[in-house]
Amino acid sequence: MVPGQKIYRHSGLPEIAIGNTMRAVDIIAKKRDGKELSREEIEFLIRGYLDGTVPDYQVSAWTMAVFFQGMGSEETAALTEVMLRSGAVIDLSSLPGPFIDKHSTGGVGDKTSLILAPLAAALGIQDPMMSGRALGHTGGTLDKLESIPGYRTGLSVEEFRRILAKDGFVMAGQTKEVVPADRLLYALRDVCSTVESIPLITASILAKKAAEGAEGLVFDVKYGSGAFMKGVEQGEKLALSLAATGQAMGKRIIALLTDMDEPLGNMVGNFLEVEESLDCLEGAGLRGTPGPGDLMEVTLELGARMAVLGGKAKDAAEGRTLCEDRIAGGKPRELFLQNVQSQGGDIKKLLELRGRWRSPISGEVRVPAGLSNPETGAVAGYVRRIDAWKVGHAAIALGVGRNRTEDQVSPTAGIQLHKKGGDPVKPGEPVMTVWSATGEGLRTALPQLEAAVEYGVEPPEPRRLIYTEIQSKEM
Amino acid sequence: MVPGQKIYRHSGLPEIAIGNTMRAVDIIAKKRDGKELSREEIEFLIRGYLDGTVPDYQVSAWTMAVFFQGMGSEETAALTEVMLRSGAVIDLSSLPGPFIDKHSTGGVGDKTSLILAPLAAALGIQDPMMSGRALGHTGGTLDKLESIPGYRTGLSVEEFRRILAKDGFVMAGQTKEVVPADRLLYALRDVCSTVESIPLITASILAKKAAEGAEGLVFDVKYGSGAFMKGVEQGEKLALSLAATGQAMGKRIIALLTDMDEPLGNMVGNFLEVEESLDCLEGAGLRGTPGPGDLMEVTLELGARMAVLGGKAKDAAEGRTLCEDRIAGGKPRELFLQNVQSQGGDIKKLLELRGRWRSPISGEVRVPAGLSNPETGAVAGYVRRIDAWKVGHAAIALGVGRNRTEDQVSPTAGIQLHKKGGDPVKPGEPVMTVWSATGEGLRTALPQLEAAVEYGVEPPEPRRLIYTEIQSKEM
Repeated sequence: MVPGQKIYRHSGLPEIAIGNTMRAVDIIAKKRDGKELSREEIEFLIRGYLDGTVPDYQVSAWTMAVFFQGMGSEETAALTEVMLRSGAVIDLSSLPGPFIDKHSTGGVGDKTSLILAPLAAALGIQDPMMSGRALGHTGGTLDKLESIPGYRTGLSVEEFRRILAKDGFVMAGQTKEVVPADRLLYALRDVCSTVESIPLITASILAKKAAEGAEGLVFDVKYGSGAFMKGVEQGEKLALSLAATGQAMGKRIIALLTDMDEPLGNMVGNFLEVEESLDCLEGAGLRGTPGPGDLMEVTLELGARMAVLGGKAKDAAEGRTLCEDRIAGGKPRELFLQNVQSQGGDIKKLLELRGRWRSPISGEVRVPAGLSNPETGAVAGYVRRIDAWKVGHAAIALGVGRNRTEDQVSPTAGIQLHKKGGDPVKPGEPVMTVWSATGEGLRTALPQLEAAVEYGVEPPEPRRLIYTEIQSKEM
Repeated sequence: MVPGQKIYRHSGLPEIAIGNTMRAVDIIAKKRDGKELSREEIEFLIRGYLDGTVPDYQVSAWTMAVFFQGMGSEETAALTEVMLRSGAVIDLSSLPGPFIDKHSTGGVGDKTSLILAPLAAALGIQDPMMSGRALGHTGGTLDKLESIPGYRTGLSVEEFRRILAKDGFVMAGQTKEVVPADRLLYALRDVCSTVESIPLITASILAKKAAEGAEGLVFDVKYGSGAFMKGVEQGEKLALSLAATGQAMGKRIIALLTDMDEPLGNMVGNFLEVEESLDCLEGAGLRGTPGPGDLMEVTLELGARMAVLGGKAKDAAEGRTLCEDRIAGGKPRELFLQNVQSQGGDIKKLLELRGRWRSPISGEVRVPAGLSNPETGAVAGYVRRIDAWKVGHAAIALGVGRNRTEDQVSPTAGIQLHKKGGDPVKPGEPVMTVWSATGEGLRTALPQLEAAVEYGVEPPEPRRLIYTEIQSKEM
């Protein structure tokens, strides 16, 4: 074992600080010792990282120091702004606004964006939405949209602006010009186990949202097994950090902490989730109508806050009524289909394929035979919970999601949940139908999905879908 | 600002762990979360770092996680052994032993090694000493020895063994073959602000000491302004870590926590410290004889523990008497001069130059005129303290030490302390004589040295030179 010729130098030479010469090593030590970094220090570090004068081994050590010591909201705002200025910012000054967007921290079966963007547009709000792709057990809005034949999410800035002006919303991927510092820093954090840092997550999210031009932001911070933040405490910390940092950047922020312990809605998959979104835009689950009630509940509560931030309602209750009325009136559905066309999608095919475009290999998860009530002896019980994390992981095997950013996803693979937590079930009843791109995928996913369902003889406590609401102080 | 083409990959591909595939990212996360790493995980990380399969940005993030979460003694022992096995280990099996060495964490005016090595040899102990160079405000044994005309510290392994066999001790620099992992890791920690981590310091010290072949080790862990560990608590933690880890590696360890708030002895410089060592080997400061009493006290207490570890005394008290007797008998002085010759030094020149080889530019620090006792009105007082850190920093300017490893040092620059803490002084009396390699050095150092002396009308509390003793549990 012979060591390579590695030579480490204090960046910002000379090695002994003279006067005000800034050095990365001192900035790392300052953060390590729990002190707040100045805007200049953060800029020195991040800009140096981008232009190569601060090496990655110093930046990774700094991210670990941030993991342990955190950052104040002024400090996080400075980091966000430095990251934001590392690339292009979309100029929306030619449009009337208001520009309000929603961002979710990611979950399983979470298709609220597809319903909310046209709903907001129907309220007279402009939603300049830049979304991400599926990664790990969570789904991605772009992958879902791209399952619509012809739909394009890779838009130029010109297209982005034109479609936003025309439809009142646009749903695109992040362009390479936007926040390059985030892509680089995220990749480094990903291999150095410093992804799970509240201020670094905050800066990453807010820089991207600020770059797309949003003035007000509704955050759906998820907690539970299917979320990145498993505990409600961590979720709350992130929500508070987003609100405080967003405020320091002059944005209005509302964050809802929502439950992601079970998949949201009844569909997990790409085209399957487009279908379910269309169902909701047609009123499924609305005001007691049959359909995915949990999905509709979260969507409407988020929509209500978008209405408030956009100045269309005085409070969330008024916003919610407004959202329900708009969906019932059919305008959001119309705008959704209009946008499909604007972004190159084939409406005719979408509607033709609806309800029948599925991967060829399928299977079922059924209630096991042994389920019985020990007191009455009756062969029956309840689904107590369907573990979102396990469902999300099974979905990767099916081809819905991806383990690596370079993996391809299947539009037609997925899971339909016939039962959810709280539903009464009998042995042999189907709980899920599963479609897979490959036989191996199905064989891998089925036992995982079976293990995701928890049964009991008693029904579970009702779930609290919206846990709490956090606002930036000056609204 | 355009980001470079940086691509980060989870080392130990594939990216999703399959079965037992080890990945650096998971090892970092484990340590980040406060868990103990297995020997295999530490080996994967350090060996991977050396052979290039684990990139430095992951290793630096890991060192920061260690900084915050620490390591257990088994874990630190595993790290030490992996580092030890990264290079050559000196084989001393042809020699009788016992092999006992002393290691100091570094200080100002600390020349105990030069007295202890021949003293141990005179007790029948073999001391295979590998030392370091001056860095920052602390002096280095190699620089002091090399001020003796002709003295060589860059020895081959053969020479190292031969001189150890002949003189009973040898004083050499670390060869490139020994613990290459430490040089690499230290350089990385140095630029990533993770030097100050007790387990990483422990592994760095113990790996080097184990490589030189020592069976028992006496550590002089210094605390106070002139030490790397300013507080006694940190020093104690390091001493405990050295003892526990050394024990886990099968070494016998005694650590003394000693005061480094004032320079040790009366000389700070390279040739100056060789002279003072020679004085001590001739009995200066011994049993009430005039001379550097503090230096002699620390040296004898350390020597007493070397005697215990080497099986030459049943306890420290007996060991101390033995050490005093040996110095009084003159054998250690004789062995010192014999070693000077063995390592290429010119004894005749050394003795000729003694007391008069000084840098040409000199100055003095005197007691200021305004010092008076407000009660009695008498113009007099006491030196309360001479700040070791300030003296060490002034010594760099004089040319004694170095800021960077590539800097050259002067053999003849330095400081002679005529007064120390507790000494009564009168205005105008000389406190220090200062020799500098350059006029600029003198102009820089003099005000720093003046600021290093604290005066008062009352004498200070007597200093406690030896704070506490820590042993590995099974001795």
